[in-house]
Amino acid sequence: MNEKDLFLIGDIPGFTPQIGRLVSMMNYARYTTLSAVAGLGVDELDYLPDPQSNSIGALLLHIAAAEVGYQAATFYARDLNEEERREWGAALDLGESARREIRGHELDYYLCRLEQVRAMTLAELGRREDRWLEEETSFGGGQRVNNYFKWFHVFGHELNHRGQIRWLRIRATRRS
Amino acid sequence: MNEKDLFLIGDIPGFTPQIGRLVSMMNYARYTTLSAVAGLGVDELDYLPDPQSNSIGALLLHIAAAEVGYQAATFYARDLNEEERREWGAALDLGESARREIRGHELDYYLCRLEQVRAMTLAELGRREDRWLEEETSFGGGQRVNNYFKWFHVFGHELNHRGQIRWLRIRATRRS
Repeated sequence: MNEKDLFLIGDIPGFTPQIGRLVSMMNYARYTTLSAVAGLGVDELDYLPDPQSNSIGALLLHIAAAEVGYQAATFYARDLNEEERREWGAALDLGESARREIRGHELDYYLCRLEQVRAMTLAELGRREDRWLEEETSFGGGQRVNNYFKWFHVFGHELNHRGQIRWLRIRATRRS
Repeated sequence: MNEKDLFLIGDIPGFTPQIGRLVSMMNYARYTTLSAVAGLGVDELDYLPDPQSNSIGALLLHIAAAEVGYQAATFYARDLNEEERREWGAALDLGESARREIRGHELDYYLCRLEQVRAMTLAELGRREDRWLEEETSFGGGQRVNNYFKWFHVFGHELNHRGQIRWLRIRATRRS
Protein backbone atom coordinates (compact mmCIF):
# COMPACT_ATOMS: atom_id res chain seq x y z
CA MET A 1 0.00 0.00 0.00
CA ASN A 2 1.42 3.38 -1.01
CA GLU A 3 0.74 5.82 1.85
CA LYS A 4 1.42 8.80 -0.35
CA ASP A 5 -1.66 7.99 -2.40
CA LEU A 6 -3.80 6.90 0.51
CA PHE A 7 -6.36 9.68 -0.04
CA LEU A 8 -6.66 9.24 -3.79
CA ILE A 9 -9.26 6.88 -5.17
CA GLY A 10 -8.01 6.18 -8.66
CA ASP A 11 -5.75 4.12 -10.86
CA ILE A 12 -3.39 1.64 -9.24
CA PRO A 13 -0.66 -0.06 -11.28
CA GLY A 14 -1.48 -3.71 -11.89
CA PHE A 15 -5.24 -3.25 -11.84
CA THR A 16 -7.81 -2.20 -14.46
CA PRO A 17 -9.36 1.25 -13.77
CA GLN A 18 -12.53 0.24 -11.91
CA ILE A 19 -10.78 -2.51 -10.00
CA GLY A 20 -8.03 -0.02 -9.11
CA ARG A 21 -10.61 2.32 -7.61
CA LEU A 22 -12.11 -0.53 -5.63
CA VAL A 23 -8.66 -1.55 -4.40
CA SER A 24 -7.97 2.09 -3.40
CA MET A 25 -11.01 1.97 -1.15
CA MET A 26 -10.07 -1.44 0.25
CA ASN A 27 -6.54 -0.16 0.96
CA TYR A 28 -7.77 2.87 2.83
CA ALA A 29 -10.24 0.85 4.86
CA ARG A 30 -7.48 -1.59 5.80
CA TYR A 31 -5.08 1.21 6.69
CA THR A 32 -7.59 2.60 9.18
CA THR A 33 -8.31 -0.84 10.64
CA LEU A 34 -4.61 -1.39 11.25
CA SER A 35 -4.34 2.08 12.81
CA ALA A 36 -7.28 1.28 15.09
CA VAL A 37 -5.50 -1.74 16.58
CA ALA A 38 -1.87 -0.57 16.52
CA GLY A 39 0.00 -1.38 19.71
CA LEU A 40 -2.73 -3.43 21.38
CA GLY A 41 -1.72 -6.26 23.71
CA VAL A 42 -3.39 -9.62 24.27
CA ASP A 43 -5.55 -8.38 27.17
CA GLU A 44 -6.92 -5.56 25.05
CA LEU A 45 -7.47 -7.79 22.04
CA ASP A 46 -9.44 -10.16 24.28
CA TYR A 47 -11.36 -7.46 26.16
CA LEU A 48 -15.13 -7.95 26.45
CA PRO A 49 -17.13 -5.06 27.91
CA ASP A 50 -20.11 -7.33 28.46
CA PRO A 51 -20.86 -11.05 28.01
CA GLN A 52 -22.52 -10.52 24.62
CA SER A 53 -19.66 -8.57 23.09
CA ASN A 54 -17.15 -9.62 20.53
CA SER A 55 -13.50 -8.93 21.25
CA ILE A 56 -11.30 -6.81 19.01
CA GLY A 57 -9.36 -9.96 18.16
CA ALA A 58 -12.49 -11.80 17.11
CA LEU A 59 -13.61 -8.82 15.01
CA LEU A 60 -10.24 -8.74 13.23
CA LEU A 61 -10.52 -12.41 12.38
CA HIS A 62 -14.16 -11.87 11.39
CA ILE A 63 -13.03 -9.23 8.89
CA ALA A 64 -10.57 -11.71 7.37
CA ALA A 65 -13.12 -14.52 7.40
CA ALA A 66 -15.71 -12.48 5.51
CA GLU A 67 -13.09 -11.76 2.88
CA VAL A 68 -12.35 -15.48 2.56
CA GLY A 69 -16.07 -16.07 2.08
CA TYR A 70 -16.29 -13.52 -0.73
CA GLN A 71 -13.13 -14.90 -2.34
CA ALA A 72 -14.84 -18.28 -2.58
CA ALA A 73 -18.07 -16.73 -3.86
CA THR A 74 -16.62 -14.41 -6.47
CA PHE A 75 -13.36 -16.05 -7.59
CA TYR A 76 -14.44 -19.69 -7.43
CA ALA A 77 -18.26 -19.49 -7.51
CA ARG A 78 -18.68 -21.70 -4.47
CA ASP A 79 -19.38 -21.62 -0.74
CA LEU A 80 -16.65 -22.21 1.83
CA ASN A 81 -15.53 -25.83 1.79
CA GLU A 82 -15.34 -28.01 4.88
CA GLU A 83 -11.71 -27.20 5.64
CA GLU A 84 -12.28 -23.44 5.29
CA ARG A 85 -15.38 -23.71 7.39
CA ARG A 86 -13.36 -25.44 10.11
CA GLU A 87 -10.69 -22.77 9.94
CA TRP A 88 -12.94 -19.73 9.77
CA GLY A 89 -16.27 -20.86 11.24
CA ALA A 90 -15.92 -19.30 14.70
CA ALA A 91 -14.61 -16.05 13.23
CA LEU A 92 -17.46 -15.92 10.73
CA ASP A 93 -20.18 -16.67 13.24
CA LEU A 94 -18.80 -14.58 16.15
CA GLY A 95 -20.77 -14.89 19.40
CA GLU A 96 -20.23 -17.75 21.84
CA SER A 97 -17.85 -19.92 19.81
CA ALA A 98 -15.68 -16.92 18.93
CA ARG A 99 -15.50 -15.84 22.58
CA ARG A 100 -14.38 -19.36 23.49
CA GLU A 101 -11.98 -20.08 20.63
CA ILE A 102 -10.51 -16.73 19.58
CA ARG A 103 -8.39 -15.47 22.44
CA GLY A 104 -4.89 -15.39 23.82
CA HIS A 105 -3.26 -14.32 20.56
CA GLU A 106 -0.79 -11.50 20.06
CA LEU A 107 -1.68 -8.76 17.58
CA ASP A 108 0.72 -10.20 15.00
CA TYR A 109 -1.35 -13.35 14.76
CA TYR A 110 -4.35 -11.35 13.55
CA LEU A 111 -2.35 -9.05 11.30
CA CYS A 112 -0.73 -12.03 9.65
CA ARG A 113 -4.08 -13.65 8.87
CA LEU A 114 -5.49 -10.40 7.49
CA GLU A 115 -2.40 -9.96 5.36
CA GLN A 116 -2.42 -13.50 3.96
CA VAL A 117 -6.07 -13.26 2.97
CA ARG A 118 -5.62 -9.83 1.41
CA ALA A 119 -2.60 -10.94 -0.62
CA MET A 120 -4.74 -13.63 -2.24
CA THR A 121 -7.53 -11.14 -2.94
CA LEU A 122 -5.18 -8.69 -4.65
CA ALA A 123 -3.58 -11.45 -6.71
CA GLU A 124 -6.99 -12.59 -7.95
CA LEU A 125 -8.29 -9.07 -8.59
CA GLY A 126 -5.12 -8.30 -10.55
CA ARG A 127 -5.99 -11.12 -12.95
CA ARG A 128 -9.43 -9.71 -13.73
CA GLU A 129 -10.88 -7.00 -15.96
CA ASP A 130 -13.36 -4.26 -15.10
CA ARG A 131 -16.21 -6.05 -16.84
CA TRP A 132 -15.89 -8.87 -14.27
CA LEU A 133 -17.17 -6.39 -11.67
CA GLU A 134 -20.46 -6.19 -13.54
CA GLU A 135 -21.04 -9.96 -13.52
CA GLU A 136 -24.19 -10.80 -11.61
CA THR A 137 -25.51 -13.67 -9.58
CA SER A 138 -28.74 -13.68 -7.60
CA PHE A 139 -29.50 -13.70 -3.91
CA GLY A 140 -32.62 -15.31 -2.49
CA GLY A 141 -35.81 -13.63 -3.71
CA GLY A 142 -34.30 -13.10 -7.15
CA GLN A 143 -32.40 -10.01 -5.99
CA ARG A 144 -29.48 -9.45 -8.34
CA VAL A 145 -26.00 -8.77 -7.00
CA ASN A 146 -22.82 -8.03 -8.94
CA ASN A 147 -19.16 -8.60 -8.10
CA TYR A 148 -18.64 -4.89 -7.58
CA PHE A 149 -21.22 -4.96 -4.84
CA LYS A 150 -19.67 -8.02 -3.21
CA TRP A 151 -16.25 -6.39 -2.93
CA PHE A 152 -17.75 -3.08 -1.88
CA HIS A 153 -19.48 -5.08 0.81
CA VAL A 154 -16.18 -6.61 1.98
CA PHE A 155 -14.67 -3.23 2.76
CA GLY A 156 -17.98 -1.81 3.99
CA HIS A 157 -18.22 -4.73 6.40
CA GLU A 158 -14.67 -3.97 7.55
CA LEU A 159 -15.52 -0.30 8.16
CA ASN A 160 -18.61 -1.28 10.12
CA HIS A 161 -16.53 -3.44 12.46
CA ARG A 162 -13.72 -0.89 12.58
CA GLY A 163 -16.29 1.43 14.14
CA GLN A 164 -16.89 -1.17 16.83
CA ILE A 165 -13.15 -1.78 17.24
CA ARG A 166 -12.56 1.94 17.88
CA TRP A 167 -15.31 1.96 20.47
CA LEU A 168 -13.84 -1.13 22.15
CA ARG A 169 -10.29 0.18 22.00
CA ILE A 170 -11.18 3.29 24.01
CA ARG A 171 -12.71 1.15 26.73
CA ALA A 172 -10.12 -1.63 26.64
CA THR A 173 -7.19 0.75 26.99
CA ARG A 174 -8.85 2.91 29.66
CA ARG A 175 -8.74 0.02 32.11
CA SER A 176 -4.97 -0.27 32.16
CA MET B 1 -33.49 4.66 -3.96
CA ASN B 2 -34.54 1.64 -6.01
CA GLU B 3 -34.54 -1.39 -3.70
CA LYS B 4 -34.56 -3.80 -6.63
CA ASP B 5 -31.07 -2.65 -7.57
CA LEU B 6 -29.76 -2.30 -4.03
CA PHE B 7 -27.06 -4.96 -4.52
CA LEU B 8 -25.83 -3.66 -7.85
CA ILE B 9 -23.03 -1.13 -7.95
CA GLY B 10 -23.36 0.39 -11.39
CA ASP B 11 -25.04 2.97 -13.57
CA ILE B 12 -27.81 5.08 -12.07
CA PRO B 13 -29.98 7.29 -14.29
CA GLY B 14 -29.14 10.95 -13.80
CA PHE B 15 -25.50 10.37 -12.91
CA THR B 16 -22.34 9.87 -14.94
CA PRO B 17 -20.88 6.32 -14.72
CA GLN B 18 -18.34 6.78 -11.91
CA ILE B 19 -20.60 9.06 -9.92
CA GLY B 20 -23.40 6.53 -10.38
CA ARG B 21 -21.23 3.82 -8.84
CA LEU B 22 -20.37 6.09 -5.95
CA VAL B 23 -24.06 6.90 -5.43
CA SER B 24 -24.87 3.16 -5.52
CA MET B 25 -22.51 2.66 -2.59
CA MET B 26 -23.89 5.68 -0.74
CA ASN B 27 -27.43 4.38 -1.28
CA TYR B 28 -26.63 0.97 0.10
CA ALA B 29 -24.83 2.41 3.12
CA ARG B 30 -27.81 4.63 3.85
CA TYR B 31 -30.28 1.79 3.42
CA THR B 32 -28.44 -0.20 6.08
CA THR B 33 -28.23 2.78 8.44
CA LEU B 34 -31.98 3.28 8.19
CA SER B 35 -32.54 -0.44 8.79
CA ALA B 36 -30.31 -0.26 11.87
CA VAL B 37 -32.50 2.38 13.52
CA ALA B 38 -35.96 1.36 12.25
CA GLY B 39 -38.60 1.45 14.94
CA LEU B 40 -36.46 3.01 17.69
CA GLY B 41 -38.13 5.26 20.27
CA VAL B 42 -36.75 8.35 22.01
CA ASP B 43 -35.37 6.40 24.97
CA GLU B 44 -33.42 4.11 22.70
CA LEU B 45 -32.17 6.94 20.53
CA ASP B 46 -30.91 8.69 23.68
CA TYR B 47 -29.46 5.56 25.32
CA LEU B 48 -25.91 5.86 26.67
CA PRO B 49 -24.27 2.65 27.88
CA ASP B 50 -21.59 4.66 29.69
CA PRO B 51 -20.86 8.36 30.30
CA GLN B 52 -18.37 8.57 27.42
CA SER B 53 -20.68 7.09 24.81
CA ASN B 54 -22.49 8.79 22.00
CA SER B 55 -26.18 8.06 21.59
CA ILE B 56 -27.67 6.57 18.43
CA GLY B 57 -29.44 9.90 17.86
CA ALA B 58 -26.18 11.83 18.10
CA LEU B 59 -24.48 9.40 15.73
CA LEU B 60 -27.28 9.82 13.18
CA LEU B 61 -26.90 13.58 13.29
CA HIS B 62 -23.12 13.17 13.18
CA ILE B 63 -23.47 11.21 9.92
CA ALA B 64 -25.55 14.04 8.44
CA ALA B 65 -23.17 16.70 9.77
CA ALA B 66 -20.11 15.06 8.20
CA GLU B 67 -21.95 15.04 4.88
CA VAL B 68 -22.70 18.76 5.25
CA GLY B 69 -19.00 19.34 5.87
CA TYR B 70 -17.98 17.48 2.72
CA GLN B 71 -20.66 19.28 0.71
CA ALA B 72 -19.06 22.58 1.70
CA ALA B 73 -15.56 21.26 0.96
CA THR B 74 -16.23 19.64 -2.39
CA PHE B 75 -19.14 21.58 -3.91
CA TYR B 76 -18.26 25.05 -2.64
CA ALA B 77 -14.53 24.78 -1.79
CA ARG B 78 -14.97 26.20 1.69
CA ASP B 79 -15.26 25.26 5.37
CA LEU B 80 -18.57 25.35 7.21
CA ASN B 81 -19.76 28.91 7.71
CA GLU B 82 -20.81 30.30 11.06
CA GLU B 83 -24.47 29.46 10.65
CA GLU B 84 -23.73 25.89 9.60
CA ARG B 85 -21.27 25.56 12.43
CA ARG B 86 -23.98 26.68 14.88
CA GLU B 87 -26.45 24.21 13.41
CA TRP B 88 -24.12 21.20 13.12
CA GLY B 89 -21.32 21.87 15.62
CA ALA B 90 -22.49 19.60 18.43
CA ALA B 91 -23.27 16.80 15.97
CA LEU B 92 -19.88 17.16 14.32
CA ASP B 93 -17.92 17.23 17.56
CA LEU B 94 -19.93 14.59 19.45
CA GLY B 95 -18.88 14.09 23.09
CA GLU B 96 -20.11 16.30 25.90
CA SER B 97 -21.95 18.96 23.87
CA ALA B 98 -23.73 16.31 21.80
CA ARG B 99 -24.80 14.44 24.94
CA ARG B 100 -26.25 17.69 26.31
CA GLU B 101 -27.84 19.09 23.18
CA ILE B 102 -28.89 16.14 21.05
CA ARG B 103 -31.63 14.30 22.89
CA GLY B 104 -35.37 14.03 23.27
CA HIS B 105 -36.06 13.79 19.55
CA GLU B 106 -38.22 11.22 17.80
CA LEU B 107 -36.65 9.11 15.07
CA ASP B 108 -38.37 11.17 12.37
CA TYR B 109 -36.39 14.22 13.39
CA TYR B 110 -33.12 12.46 12.56
CA LEU B 111 -34.42 10.80 9.41
CA CYS B 112 -35.65 14.13 8.12
CA ARG B 113 -32.25 15.79 8.62
CA LEU B 114 -30.45 12.90 6.94
CA GLU B 115 -32.87 13.04 4.04
CA GLN B 116 -32.59 16.80 3.55
CA VAL B 117 -28.81 16.69 3.50
CA ARG B 118 -28.73 13.73 1.14
CA ALA B 119 -31.17 15.37 -1.29
CA MET B 120 -28.78 18.28 -1.63
CA THR B 121 -25.82 15.93 -2.16
CA LEU B 122 -27.58 14.02 -4.92
CA ALA B 123 -28.68 17.22 -6.64
CA GLU B 124 -25.10 18.52 -6.67
CA LEU B 125 -23.57 15.20 -7.73
CA GLY B 126 -26.10 14.99 -10.56
CA ARG B 127 -24.75 18.25 -11.94
CA ARG B 128 -21.17 16.96 -12.11
CA GLU B 129 -19.12 14.80 -14.48
CA ASP B 130 -16.86 11.87 -13.67
CA ARG B 131 -13.73 13.91 -14.13
CA TRP B 132 -14.78 16.06 -11.16
CA LEU B 133 -14.12 13.02 -8.97
CA GLU B 134 -10.46 13.15 -9.93
CA GLU B 135 -10.01 16.80 -8.88
CA GLU B 136 -7.48 17.10 -6.10
CA THR B 137 -6.82 19.39 -3.19
CA SER B 138 -4.22 18.84 -0.50
CA PHE B 139 -4.42 17.98 3.17
CA GLY B 140 -1.84 19.15 5.65
CA GLY B 141 1.61 17.72 4.94
CA GLY B 142 1.06 18.01 1.20
CA GLN B 143 -0.97 14.79 1.11
CA ARG B 144 -3.17 14.87 -1.98
CA VAL B 145 -6.85 14.00 -1.77
CA ASN B 146 -9.41 13.81 -4.57
CA ASN B 147 -13.17 14.30 -4.59
CA TYR B 148 -13.70 10.58 -5.09
CA PHE B 149 -11.90 9.95 -1.82
CA LYS B 150 -13.93 12.59 0.01
CA TRP B 151 -17.25 11.05 -1.00
CA PHE B 152 -15.97 7.54 -0.39
CA HIS B 153 -15.04 8.83 3.04
CA VAL B 154 -18.58 10.13 3.64
CA PHE B 155 -20.15 6.71 3.20
CA GLY B 156 -17.20 4.95 4.89
CA HIS B 157 -17.69 7.21 7.89
CA GLU B 158 -21.38 6.35 7.87
CA LEU B 159 -20.62 2.60 7.82
CA ASN B 160 -18.17 3.01 10.69
CA HIS B 161 -20.85 4.62 12.84
CA ARG B 162 -23.51 2.22 11.65
CA GLY B 163 -21.35 -0.47 13.24
CA GLN B 164 -21.55 1.43 16.53
CA ILE B 165 -25.28 2.02 16.10
CA ARG B 166 -25.89 -1.71 15.68
CA TRP B 167 -23.89 -2.41 18.82
CA LEU B 168 -25.85 0.26 20.73
CA ARG B 169 -29.20 -0.88 19.38
CA ILE B 170 -28.78 -4.40 20.77
CA ARG B 171 -28.04 -2.98 24.22
CA ALA B 172 -30.63 -0.18 24.11
CA THR B 173 -33.47 -2.49 23.15
CA ARG B 174 -32.48 -5.25 25.57
CA ARG B 175 -33.32 -2.99 28.49
CA SER B 176 -36.98 -2.63 27.64
